[in-house]
Amino acid sequence: MNDTIKKQLDHRSIREFKNEPLPKETVDLLIEVARRTATSSALQASSIIIITDPHLKQKISEISKQEYISRIPLFLIFIVDQYRNNQIAVEQGVITEAASGMDGFFRSFTDAVLMAQNVVTAAESMNLGTLYIGSILNDTTTLSKLLNLPPLTFPVLGLAIGIPNQSPALKPRMSMELRTFENQYVRYENYLTKIEDYDEHLQTYYDLRDTNRRVDSFSTMVFKRMQNPNLRRSEILNVVATQGFDLKVKPKE
Amino acid sequence: MNDTIKKQLDHRSIREFKNEPLPKETVDLLIEVARRTATSSALQASSIIIITDPHLKQKISEISKQEYISRIPLFLIFIVDQYRNNQIAVEQGVITEAASGMDGFFRSFTDAVLMAQNVVTAAESMNLGTLYIGSILNDTTTLSKLLNLPPLTFPVLGLAIGIPNQSPALKPRMSMELRTFENQYVRYENYLTKIEDYDEHLQTYYDLRDTNRRVDSFSTMVFKRMQNPNLRRSEILNVVATQGFDLKVKPKE
Repeated sequence: MNDTIKKQLDHRSIREFKNEPLPKETVDLLIEVARRTATSSALQASSIIIITDPHLKQKISEISKQEYISRIPLFLIFIVDQYRNNQIAVEQGVITEAASGMDGFFRSFTDAVLMAQNVVTAAESMNLGTLYIGSILNDTTTLSKLLNLPPLTFPVLGLAIGIPNQSPALKPRMSMELRTFENQYVRYENYLTKIEDYDEHLQTYYDLRDTNRRVDSFSTMVFKRMQNPNLRRSEILNVVATQGFDLKVKPKE
Repeated sequence: MNDTIKKQLDHRSIREFKNEPLPKETVDLLIEVARRTATSSALQASSIIIITDPHLKQKISEISKQEYISRIPLFLIFIVDQYRNNQIAVEQGVITEAASGMDGFFRSFTDAVLMAQNVVTAAESMNLGTLYIGSILNDTTTLSKLLNLPPLTFPVLGLAIGIPNQSPALKPRMSMELRTFENQYVRYENYLTKIEDYDEHLQTYYDLRDTNRRVDSFSTMVFKRMQNPNLRRSEILNVVATQGFDLKVKPKE
């Protein structure tokens, strides 16, 4: 097994970093990796916002309800960006609805996530720690204002990078037998039976966030999540519309 | 620069593969990389469908209008999968709307794309070639039927992997100065001026798909795209709804 894959299999979320900024060359290299990431139809319709302002970090930390955000050495936010290409079209006299279509939104969203994971792998190959921060989406209205996002853009994912100051255990994951299918999706009769071993296994994992508490089994975790969804995020599609994307259902051609 | 990053910076799309299947150990290792990829709230709500049936490849090739799909050695489709966790909740007597919310959809979509890019990096680290196939989404209604997708699932991205049988040039990309911002998004007055050099540079790239034709400049490519969007994909949000996700806009809490 090569070093790249060894590191990929060793991935874990790092929530505490050493209080050391990353050298400019490291940041530039990570951004170059983002640049070379695959992109839908070569359109490069995604962007990155680097959060350096302590005041802004604090504000985002309040949205996320994660206090460690204010201490992240390198904090990136990946965004859908159809604004730039739309302007390039407008400057050439083309006014169309293409940039506001949900097809373009999903392409840009995909591009943004591909970049994020490529940057994570690059960072980890340099022994840096990473953490995806989805909770920046708890309030996309406020976040979009804080980042001064123009129409046809949308925040997708936050990413923290730094020198790790903790070494959490590898978190157990369910068997890929449950998550991989050949040619057609297969529905199982009884998932609780299928994940019995995983339920047991997961409870042996002690999360560094609270080492005194046994973690829930997977089925209990899912149970709690489904009973108590994150209502703050239920407005996400509204904000996609507010940002100028067209949610209207369209007839098939 | 380490080998991982060297390979990442050397990424290119491979459309022609040697007619050799990948060893089972290679496929298993790629799936294990997918398993270890970061996942929103540890919920693992994404899945992979491996397309091996030649008849099915042919059908998907027709959707994509890409004849090379029928010749892909390893063909993966990454999907949103809220079905599994919803069943785990239902089996415990919980009936909620959480699994059908768009927040969950976006989390799963993100997870699926993170897995895809991690698999791409792993494959390329083993000198395999890769190609994302977004065109499987040209007809998500038909694709969902072909894959027998249950409610609360949705196809996200196709991925081809194999031993490369071509070596295309590295495709020029625009400067990340245009795609990276500090703290706040910055709108430029004149994008055509900003991408002048890139427009020129891109035209020096000869695409292997048609070596006799100069490629368009970026601004021309965007112009053509915006004037002639892919209408076959305009129904994408309808199919998200058909698959059981709730597009209704929700009041903010």
